[in-house]
Amino acid sequence: MYTMGIDIGSASSKAVILKDGKEIVSTAVAQVGTGSTGPRRVMAEVLEKANLTEKDIDKTVTTGYGRFSIDKADKQFSEISCHAKGIHFLVPTARTIIDIGGQDAKAIKLDKTGRVKQFFMNDKCAAGTGRFLDVMARILEVDLSEMGEYDSMADEPSVVSSTCTVFAESEVISQLSRGLKKQNIIAGVHNSTASKACSLAYRAGVEGDVVMCGGVAQNKGVVRAISDELGTDVIVAPNPQTTGALGAAIYAYEAAAEKKAI
Amino acid sequence: MYTMGIDIGSASSKAVILKDGKEIVSTAVAQVGTGSTGPRRVMAEVLEKANLTEKDIDKTVTTGYGRFSIDKADKQFSEISCHAKGIHFLVPTARTIIDIGGQDAKAIKLDKTGRVKQFFMNDKCAAGTGRFLDVMARILEVDLSEMGEYDSMADEPSVVSSTCTVFAESEVISQLSRGLKKQNIIAGVHNSTASKACSLAYRAGVEGDVVMCGGVAQNKGVVRAISDELGTDVIVAPNPQTTGALGAAIYAYEAAAEKKAI
Ligand code: SF4
Repeated sequence: MYTMGIDIGSASSKAVILKDGKEIVSTAVAQVGTGSTGPRRVMAEVLEKANLTEKDIDKTVTTGYGRFSIDKADKQFSEISCHAKGIHFLVPTARTIIDIGGQDAKAIKLDKTGRVKQFFMNDKCAAGTGRFLDVMARILEVDLSEMGEYDSMADEPSVVSSTCTVFAESEVISQLSRGLKKQNIIAGVHNSTASKACSLAYRAGVEGDVVMCGGVAQNKGVVRAISDELGTDVIVAPNPQTTGALGAAIYAYEAAAEKKAI
Repeated sequence: MYTMGIDIGSASSKAVILKDGKEIVSTAVAQVGTGSTGPRRVMAEVLEKANLTEKDIDKTVTTGYGRFSIDKADKQFSEISCHAKGIHFLVPTARTIIDIGGQDAKAIKLDKTGRVKQFFMNDKCAAGTGRFLDVMARILEVDLSEMGEYDSMADEPSVVSSTCTVFAESEVISQLSRGLKKQNIIAGVHNSTASKACSLAYRAGVEGDVVMCGGVAQNKGVVRAISDELGTDVIVAPNPQTTGALGAAIYAYEAAAEKKAI
């Protein structure tokens, strides 16, 4: 039995196909979100990669900000539930999830069965989200994908004292004009992101294994900074952008299996 | 007897000379703040305008973020105390002060003697401060000084739903690309500024006559929006940028008069 999970965010769309609730058959990511061609494209791509057609899919669950925009969905679940589900599947020892997306950040605390005990979200302030990093990458004239590499070369991370993206932008511009090394400024930018995102985790309470997901988990500089901030190792989820879609695909499997059992 | 008050902010410097604690002899403003030539320039300018020299000044009090950077000062007072003092001098009926500067916003509640009963400040988030308006003026390609005029031409203010400067910037860009009229977007931007700044006033409690000061009080669109938001008339302090410096000059007078009396 095949099930599909689709996660439609504000800035990206993700899809996962799961076989028998156990095996990830294919994943797809498009860097455009709700209201765009993204959802349709990831659905087509994830089917093509799996060598399947729509008819082969038993059930589809959607999640994310744009989860109600897809008429093909059998059911919708919240992002929090889906991330928790997906992460528990991938890393059963996970108790704390830090999910940093393009425009938001979340901290989720799980019990050992994978149930959500507590969560906090920031989707109002660009600080501590992917958006903060976009702004900084632009003024630093580096590609987002290079930021982790720069971070690893830092010998004296700068201090970005303003949390606010706008005020931090001015600080970074002044650090650049004072001739500070790019790698050190970038490490400072990552520390700032980590400190803001971890404030959510502190509120939820940091316990047990910490797992990062969301697009920003691909930046190893932010992972380094979060690990430094929390004083503990951080496990990066495999395919960290697609854990919500994975959770949705698991929910779809559970619903389909339940129906079959009746 | 002449006294001087100097208000050194992060983005501007202001000075006032007062005669006998009663009459404002001259004022000066420079659009650069602490660590720049601003403080020295406003001191020179305010003396020149008053046709006085340093020796004629009995006492000098400084206030603002950079108040400890001036060695000419006899004393320093907080911005909150100085704004309260200055506004009470100008508008004795004032009970609520909304002060929006280049990088911060404050709400101050006064009792009828002009004493500070309560205050709240935002200097961490660019939203609801002059900085938010700077960002918006840049993407709207209008001069800050024209924004009030545009506001008065609005017939259907747009809704800027994000409070965050960064997310609001994207909203405004999308409104521009959808062809919304500039005046309507600008009115929306002013409403957003007002709603954020007024959240401080609500916390302090809005009572009696409301007076606006700070550089942003020169923008009649923001004054309109704050008046709409609070549902009450708003009095704009004369020379709204210099009320802190005025308060400092009054403190200087009080200190000098007290000394003479002894
Ligand atoms: S602190 Fe800065 S980044 Fe955060 S909401 Fe305010 S303006 Fe936006």
